[in-house]
Amino acid sequence: MDSPVTTAVLAAARAAKDAQPALARLHRGAKDQLLLAMAAALVERAEEIVGANARDLAAADDAGMAPGLRDRLALDPERVATISQQLRDAAALPDPVGEVIRGSVLDNGLELREVRVPMGVIGMVYEARPNVTVDAAGLALKAGSAVVLRGGSAALHSNTALIGVLRDVLAAHELPADLIVGIDEHGRDGVDVLMRARGLVDVLIPRGGAGLIRRVVENSLVPVIETGTGKTHVLVDASADLDQAVAIVANAKLQRIGVCNALETLLVHRDIAAQALPRLAAPLAAAGVRLHADERAAALLPSGPDVVAATAEDWDTEYLALELAVAVVDDLDAALAHIRAHSTGHTESILTRDLTSQQRFLAEVDSAVVMANASTRFSDGGEFGFGAEIGISTQKLHARGPMGLREITASKWLVVGQGQVRP
Amino acid sequence: MDSPVTTAVLAAARAAKDAQPALARLHRGAKDQLLLAMAAALVERAEEIVGANARDLAAADDAGMAPGLRDRLALDPERVATISQQLRDAAALPDPVGEVIRGSVLDNGLELREVRVPMGVIGMVYEARPNVTVDAAGLALKAGSAVVLRGGSAALHSNTALIGVLRDVLAAHELPADLIVGIDEHGRDGVDVLMRARGLVDVLIPRGGAGLIRRVVENSLVPVIETGTGKTHVLVDASADLDQAVAIVANAKLQRIGVCNALETLLVHRDIAAQALPRLAAPLAAAGVRLHADERAAALLPSGPDVVAATAEDWDTEYLALELAVAVVDDLDAALAHIRAHSTGHTESILTRDLTSQQRFLAEVDSAVVMANASTRFSDGGEFGFGAEIGISTQKLHARGPMGLREITASKWLVVGQGQVRP
Repeated sequence: MDSPVTTAVLAAARAAKDAQPALARLHRGAKDQLLLAMAAALVERAEEIVGANARDLAAADDAGMAPGLRDRLALDPERVATISQQLRDAAALPDPVGEVIRGSVLDNGLELREVRVPMGVIGMVYEARPNVTVDAAGLALKAGSAVVLRGGSAALHSNTALIGVLRDVLAAHELPADLIVGIDEHGRDGVDVLMRARGLVDVLIPRGGAGLIRRVVENSLVPVIETGTGKTHVLVDASADLDQAVAIVANAKLQRIGVCNALETLLVHRDIAAQALPRLAAPLAAAGVRLHADERAAALLPSGPDVVAATAEDWDTEYLALELAVAVVDDLDAALAHIRAHSTGHTESILTRDLTSQQRFLAEVDSAVVMANASTRFSDGGEFGFGAEIGISTQKLHARGPMGLREITASKWLVVGQGQVRP
Repeated sequence: MDSPVTTAVLAAARAAKDAQPALARLHRGAKDQLLLAMAAALVERAEEIVGANARDLAAADDAGMAPGLRDRLALDPERVATISQQLRDAAALPDPVGEVIRGSVLDNGLELREVRVPMGVIGMVYEARPNVTVDAAGLALKAGSAVVLRGGSAALHSNTALIGVLRDVLAAHELPADLIVGIDEHGRDGVDVLMRARGLVDVLIPRGGAGLIRRVVENSLVPVIETGTGKTHVLVDASADLDQAVAIVANAKLQRIGVCNALETLLVHRDIAAQALPRLAAPLAAAGVRLHADERAAALLPSGPDVVAATAEDWDTEYLALELAVAVVDDLDAALAHIRAHSTGHTESILTRDLTSQQRFLAEVDSAVVMANASTRFSDGGEFGFGAEIGISTQKLHARGPMGLREITASKWLVVGQGQVRP
């Protein structure tokens, strides 16, 4: 017999699946009205939401949650307003559903069209960040899909309050509230059930730390879009413009710490290393970055407390902190080999003035986003002009790189005939 | 410690992964030359291939293999020539790699392009059909990917001979032979290892019976594209053109038995049922089709040995045989509900002269291919003009419906800057 958690989570997923056709029938105008009404309701009921959040924060303080995590969890009226703005932004985006992707008339007169359709039910598994709850629900809704949301247990009360507000708006618009369902109350066991809900959930998107993502990828029977982990490389080629390189490396490492498109390994061509490394290191050292340097890089860096010898693990560590792995490479081939061995396939950038180097790097690096002469921090759905981002896919199937609304839709083929049979 | 099969299959997958960059660097001309050389080599060495096949056939005869399966396994020089023609056809197709899918210049001057790239390593798991071995290898090669092939054990000698010929051609062109590797000798255990080779194999495509596909879908850690099972429906609407309907239903059921786009359930609107059912049944009865009819349909059909009472299982059975489930439905809503409950999401068709019925059917049926007034047998990559077909995806992620060369590629984003940093 199924456990109560299994029964409850499968019932929630089935309810979402049964609710979804009502959403699929809505055109853009109705969906946008819904999103705007949700945004207004969040602001109206901000006090209730902040109150629920205070319970989560109190528990977090008792548990000694790290300040960074606590900050991501905390809500105040201003942050609720920011969250509601995400829904208004989603309303402003074009509707991905209905787009004709390609089409033709076949020799026999059959009219063929591939059209974009809602995915169906999207499962989201993420960490204790209440803003993701609203963002994911809003984007799924705009893309015509129901969502099953599982945020971190630490955000249980916040998420329950937010989801409650969104569901009330659905009901007020005579739509099934089960277009948005939360399963936080079932804890980690609930995620295990969700991962096995094949046939009820069409895709599962894990967003968060490497451990969470690996757990979902390795255990899910539902198709998964793997997001996130970014062991991101910048190669300073022999011909790099050094002023640009110093600015880009500092920006890639420092503009925002703790995000997946931040720089994690710096590779420097040996022909420019002696000249470049001290200059590249200066702004990093000033910001308190500890450099994990290989032997050749260490020899060229001003020694001090900020430079430590790199270990084997450093080449595979996503620090998400004021830490950076640094290596000197013999040439482009050595850099490409290093990246092939250690990249998580998220984002890599070459800084060069040499056309051949740029062409080879763009062609041969097998990552979601491959750049030349730009900061890795541009690897982002907002920066790409998608208007919204549900995550950054590091897998090759379905979507690769920043995912916007289009990437959380599916397609189907329509074939209109006039009585054709196959000879 | 790993078993010898684990070690061997992981080594094969790793060899394919290491070989793939050499293929990724080839442009269309070189890839097409390779395919043409492979086609010529197969014809040249047909005797050797047919000899290997004879060993498989002898074992099949000893094991009492069913005639239909034996026929799919059997090769003669003429069939080898047909198989080699698949490679020539692949050479004639445009190269999917390098296509610019979309692109723009961002406000800050960054040049953004999404380009089509090879998938990497494609794993194919299929049944004892030697033609699939060559077809899959040829299409993967054209799309820039290495392949790991696992055909049915009953075709072991045939597949080994075919793969040997293809590998010899690779070596003769100074390319790594491991672009095409077979793991048939490791039996079913080899498939289990392949399914867990995450990081070495980029996608696994199972092609064959429902049992094989379910096994792969439920156990694979490698992303899977689910293909195949087609519990295909045709709805004869109240306003259908009866002459057309009779021709289309006969074509959908009889033009080729045993394929996934053949008709498996016929739904007839009650307002036309009395008039339509006897006419629809006539060509089916003449061809020896047994009708599994619900009570209302049975009452309107000429009774006889060809009509039996439908059981609950009939609505979910893909017969792939001279069998057809038949039901009378009250209206379009009832038909849509029946399809929602029983379709495998492959292909459904409505036969109607009513615009609203057609629009609703096309919009609301959530299958890979949704048709109006055409035979379900058109749900096919060749018919769609793809030039080749690697299978028909019944999942929503990545590819849906017939899959050609494009559907076995991935994409990546190229970002070319001039020193941009994020403010």
